[in-house]
Amino acid sequence: MAPRVMRFISDFFVYETAKSVVVKSWSVGVINRFVQLLIILYFIGWVFIHEKGHQTRDTGIESAVMTKVKGLGKFSNRVMDVADYVVPSQGASMFSIITNMVITPNQMQGRCPETEKNCTTDADCIKNNNGNGIITGKCLNNNVTNGTEGWCEIEGWCPAENDSISGVPMKEVENFTIFIKNSIRFPRFDVIRGSFPSSINTTYIKTCNFHPEKDPFCPIFKVGDILKQTNQDLENITKKGGEIGININWKCNLDYSVENCNPKYFFTRLDAPFEHSAASKGYNFRFAKYYQSKDGTEYRTLYKAYAIRFEIIVSGNAGKFDAVPFLINLVAAFTSVGLATVFCDIILLNFLKGADEYKAKKFEEVSGIVSEESGKKRLYQGSQVSIKGLEKSSNDSGTFSIGRQE
Amino acid sequence: MAPRVMRFISDFFVYETAKSVVVKSWSVGVINRFVQLLIILYFIGWVFIHEKGHQTRDTGIESAVMTKVKGLGKFSNRVMDVADYVVPSQGASMFSIITNMVITPNQMQGRCPETEKNCTTDADCIKNNNGNGIITGKCLNNNVTNGTEGWCEIEGWCPAENDSISGVPMKEVENFTIFIKNSIRFPRFDVIRGSFPSSINTTYIKTCNFHPEKDPFCPIFKVGDILKQTNQDLENITKKGGEIGININWKCNLDYSVENCNPKYFFTRLDAPFEHSAASKGYNFRFAKYYQSKDGTEYRTLYKAYAIRFEIIVSGNAGKFDAVPFLINLVAAFTSVGLATVFCDIILLNFLKGADEYKAKKFEEVSGIVSEESGKKRLYQGSQVSIKGLEKSSNDSGTFSIGRQE
Amino acid sequence: MAPRVMRFISDFFVYETAKSVVVKSWSVGVINRFVQLLIILYFIGWVFIHEKGHQTRDTGIESAVMTKVKGLGKFSNRVMDVADYVVPSQGASMFSIITNMVITPNQMQGRCPETEKNCTTDADCIKNNNGNGIITGKCLNNNVTNGTEGWCEIEGWCPAENDSISGVPMKEVENFTIFIKNSIRFPRFDVIRGSFPSSINTTYIKTCNFHPEKDPFCPIFKVGDILKQTNQDLENITKKGGEIGININWKCNLDYSVENCNPKYFFTRLDAPFEHSAASKGYNFRFAKYYQSKDGTEYRTLYKAYAIRFEIIVSGNAGKFDAVPFLINLVAAFTSVGLATVFCDIILLNFLKGADEYKAKKFEEVSGIVSEESGKKRLYQGSQVSIKGLEKSSNDSGTFSIGRQE
Repeated sequence: MAPRVMRFISDFFVYETAKSVVVKSWSVGVINRFVQLLIILYFIGWVFIHEKGHQTRDTGIESAVMTKVKGLGKFSNRVMDVADYVVPSQGASMFSIITNMVITPNQMQGRCPETEKNCTTDADCIKNNNGNGIITGKCLNNNVTNGTEGWCEIEGWCPAENDSISGVPMKEVENFTIFIKNSIRFPRFDVIRGSFPSSINTTYIKTCNFHPEKDPFCPIFKVGDILKQTNQDLENITKKGGEIGININWKCNLDYSVENCNPKYFFTRLDAPFEHSAASKGYNFRFAKYYQSKDGTEYRTLYKAYAIRFEIIVSGNAGKFDAVPFLINLVAAFTSVGLATVFCDIILLNFLKGADEYKAKKFEEVSGIVSEESGKKRLYQGSQVSIKGLEKSSNDSGTFSIGRQE
Repeated sequence: MAPRVMRFISDFFVYETAKSVVVKSWSVGVINRFVQLLIILYFIGWVFIHEKGHQTRDTGIESAVMTKVKGLGKFSNRVMDVADYVVPSQGASMFSIITNMVITPNQMQGRCPETEKNCTTDADCIKNNNGNGIITGKCLNNNVTNGTEGWCEIEGWCPAENDSISGVPMKEVENFTIFIKNSIRFPRFDVIRGSFPSSINTTYIKTCNFHPEKDPFCPIFKVGDILKQTNQDLENITKKGGEIGININWKCNLDYSVENCNPKYFFTRLDAPFEHSAASKGYNFRFAKYYQSKDGTEYRTLYKAYAIRFEIIVSGNAGKFDAVPFLINLVAAFTSVGLATVFCDIILLNFLKGADEYKAKKFEEVSGIVSEESGKKRLYQGSQVSIKGLEKSSNDSGTFSIGRQE
Repeated sequence: MAPRVMRFISDFFVYETAKSVVVKSWSVGVINRFVQLLIILYFIGWVFIHEKGHQTRDTGIESAVMTKVKGLGKFSNRVMDVADYVVPSQGASMFSIITNMVITPNQMQGRCPETEKNCTTDADCIKNNNGNGIITGKCLNNNVTNGTEGWCEIEGWCPAENDSISGVPMKEVENFTIFIKNSIRFPRFDVIRGSFPSSINTTYIKTCNFHPEKDPFCPIFKVGDILKQTNQDLENITKKGGEIGININWKCNLDYSVENCNPKYFFTRLDAPFEHSAASKGYNFRFAKYYQSKDGTEYRTLYKAYAIRFEIIVSGNAGKFDAVPFLINLVAAFTSVGLATVFCDIILLNFLKGADEYKAKKFEEVSGIVSEESGKKRLYQGSQVSIKGLEKSSNDSGTFSIGRQE
C-alpha cells in the first residue's frame, strides 16, 4: 500500500502548464501588444479610475432632514407667519408653504343650496353633484314652468364652498428662506456627515444665501432662487400651487479625507411629467379649523389651500478601498490581457503569410480511434503520424480560424 | 547598448499562443459542441434576455406622490367631508381616512374618577392605572366595609375617555375615491415619467375607475376595490381600522420607447404579519381639537380615531443599453465557451477508448531536476525521453483526469 | 457539394484541447497546490460563506411602521397626554414628543412693539428685525434726545413672542414608552415579516420593555433607555429638543427557516454631525391653535415647541440560494484555480534550476516569415529548426518570464 500512496502523492504534486507556440512575427507581435495595451488602458481608465473598481460601495444611505422656514407675508389683510403658512409644522423633509387660500368661514352642519345653479327639476339633482355635500334631491329656487335654473340642495357643512373666488396670492414667499439641516450615515463604513461643516461661522449662517458656486455650504435657501432655478413662474405657482424637489446628492470617495464628503444640491419641479396634462395642475388641499360656540355647536372655517410643496430627496453613495474587489478586478484585468490572443490568433491563422505553417505548429492532431494497445513506442509514432495530416484540422472555433482549407 | 535595446524590442514583440491538440473524435467533438451550445444558450437566454446583461441599471428611483381623496360620508348624524376625515390633509404619500371615532367632548384639566371601577381601597389606585390621567391615590365612591368597588381618582383631562362605547362606522368609505399622481425620475438616465400619460382625456380622468386590465392608466382608485383586492372585510376594517399598502412598481426597459415605461399597481395589507397576533389589531390614534371659553379656559374634544391608513410605496428600476456591461458579458460569454474543454477533457482522458493515447498527446513531461547544462541537442532529446515516460503523469487536477494508472 | 458539406461537418466536430507540459518538480508542484489551496479557501471562506455568493440578494426592502406613544407628563401645571404632546398624531414612522414650550396666548392681528428694545431712531427699525412681524418703521417709547432705546413697532400677530422665557421641561418623558409595529416585505422572495412574532403573549407585550439581550422581541421601547443608549442628557434634550434615530435592521438568510428572519434595533443621535456646531442646536418648531371670539375675530395661541423627534429608519436585505449566482461563482472558482499557473510559471521559468530547459519545453518557436509552400515534410522540419533556437524567445509577458537572456 505504501508505494501506492507514495505514487499518488508524487502524482498529486506534479505541475502542469500550457505548452506555448512562440511566433517571431513583427506584425502579430505589434498587434498583440497593442490590443493588450488597449485592454490595460480600459481597466485602468474605466474599471479603476471611472468605475472605482477597487472600492466597495455603500448605496444604503441613511438620512435625516430638519427644515425651518422663515419669512413674513400678507394674505387678505392678514400678516402670515410660519405657524400660519407652513404645514405640517414639524420641519420634516416634506412641507408645504401655503400661498393662496379660498376661505369659507363659519360652516355649520345643515342644509343649504349648492354653489352653482345646475338644476331645473329635482331629478337633475341626482347626477349634477359638485361634491360639497350629500344631495338631498331637492332643487331650490327653480321654476319648472319657465325653466329658470335653481340650486340643488345639499346636506353637510353649510354654506357650501365657492372655490371660483380666490384671493391675491402671497407673493412675499419669494423672499422666504428655508434652512435645511441634513445629516447622513453610510452604515457600511459607519461614516456620519452633516450637510454643512460644524466649523461654520454662526454669523455667516445667519446672513448667507445658498449659491451653487459662491456659497455651496450655506444651508439657507431663498425660495425665489429655487423657483428661478426650476424655471417656475412666481405668479403662476403662488396662485395654483406646485411641487418642488430639493435633491441633496452625496457622492463620497472615502479614500480621501472625510472632509471632502460634501453634498451637492439641485432643484427640480416634481410635477414636471404632468406639465402638459389638462387634469390636475398645481397643488392644493383642504383643511379646516374647528370652533365651538357657547352653546356647544361646532362650526368650522374651511380652507382650500394652494401651496408650494417642497420635498427634500436625499440620495448618494460612498466608496472606499477594499482588498477584495481590488483583487478581483486585478485578476480580471490580468486574465483579460490574455484575450488579446483570441484576436491575434484569428489574424495569425487566417490573414498572415504562412498561416498554414502557423496552423501546423499550433495544432497537433490525434485521430479519433487509435488502437487500444498503449506501447510507448507506438504512441510516439502515432503522434508523429497525426502531425503529418495536420492541415486538415484547422477549422476550429476556439481560436476562430475562419479559413477555407484546400 | 543599441543591439541590446534592439533585442529587447524584438523579444517584446514576440507573439505567444497556446499549442493545441486536435482530436478527430466524433463523440468528444459532438459533446464539446453540445456543451458549448448550452453555454451560448445560457448566455443569450439568461444573461442577455432575462437578466438584461447588456444594460446598466438604475435602482435609485426618485419619487414624488400627490394624493387627493374624494367622497362624503356620515358619522353620528354629521356629514363628513375630506377636511373632516383625511389626516394629514396635505395629500402626501401616507394618509389616513378616519372611519370610526370615540368622541369625548368638553374635557378640561381637573380631577375626576377613572372610567372603570377598579378599587376598593386607596392602595389599589397605585397599580390599577387605565392611563387616562395621573393617579392621585384616592379611591372614590367606594365602601371598604362592604367591599363595594369605586373609581380611582385621576388628575388630567376630565371627564376620562371611555373607549368601550363606539359609534356606527362610516361605511360610505367604500365609495370614496383616491386620486394618485406619482412622478418619478431615474437619475442615471435623467428620465422623468408620470403615472398617467399627459395626453389623457380630462373627462376620462374625472369618470374612470382604476382596473388592472380595463383601466390600467386611470389614476382614480375606489377604496372599495382596493379593500376587495386585499381581501379586507369592510365591516371589520371600518370598525377597527387597518393599514393598506398601494405599491407602485416601475420596471422600465429604456431601450424601447420611454412611452412604454409605465407603472404597475398592486395592493397589500401592511399589517398582514400581525394578523394572528392577539395584541394590537387594526389601527387607531388619538388627537384633540382645542377650544377656549370666554374666560380663557382651554377645553378640548378628544378623538380616538379608527382609520384606514394608506401608504403608497413606490419601487422600481430601469435598464438601458450600455457598451461597458455589454462588452463585459460578451467577453464572459466567449471565455465561458472555453469551459466546455474542462468537461470534455474529463471524458476524453478517462472514459474514452484510447484515453492513454490522448493523455500521451496532451501531456508532455519534463522530469524534475534536469542537468544544468542547457544544450540545444540535449534538451530536445530530454524532451523525447520524457515523452516516453508520459503515461505516469496523467493524474493532474487542472484537467480532472480521474483515472487509476497501472 | 456533398463532400464539401461532409468535410465542413467533420471539421466542425473536431475537438481541440490545450497541449500541456507536465513538470515533475516537487518545489513547483507543492507551490502550485498551495496557491490553488489558497484560492479554494478564499472562494469557500469569503465568496461563499462570508459574501453568500450562492445567493441572490433582495435589497429593495419595503416597510411600513406604526407607532404609539404612552405616558403622562406635567407641563406648567397641566397634565399632558398623548393628544397634547405627540405631533403628528397619526403614529407614523416619524413623530415628535413635545417636552418644552414657549406659549404666547391670545395673539391677534394688529400692531405692537417687538419683544426686545433695539432702536433709538425710526431708521434703526429697518435693519433690526426680530422677525415676529412686519416692521412698520416706527420706533416706540424711545427718546432720541437722551438716547433711551425703544421697541420697533411690528404689524402681525400681537403681542410678539418672547422666546427667552421658557418653562420647566416635561421630564416625565423618560418613562414614556413607544410601541413600534414594523412589517416588512422582500418583494423578490415575497417574504413578509413582522417585527415581533404573532405568537407573542398579550400580557408579555403589555408589561415588557425592550432590552437588546433580555427582551429582543419586545416592541415596547422606554424613552429613557433610548436616551441612555445614545448618550443623551435628559436635562438638555428635554429643554432644547433633539433628534433620535431608531434603526431597525433586517438581515435575513432565507436558506434557513423564515422564523430566523428577525430585526435588530439600534439607536443613534441623528443630529450628531452638528453636535459641535454653534448654529442650530436641538430641535424646535412653531405651531398655533386658532380660536374665534363671539364677534368672529380670530385669535390664536402660538407655541414654540421643543421636542424630541424620533425617526424610525428601516433597512435590510435578504439572501436566498439561487442556482444562477451559485453556478457563476463556482465557474469563477474553477477558472481562478487555474490562475495558480501564472504565479508558478514565473517561478518555474525564472528562479528554478533548469529554468532554460523548462522554457525550451514550454515554448516552441515559429520564425516570422516561413516560406509559403506548405509541404507536410517541410513543415515538420521547420518546427524542429525553430525549436533549436528556442532559448532566445523566453522574454514573454503572457507567462511573466522576467529573465535576462544572454
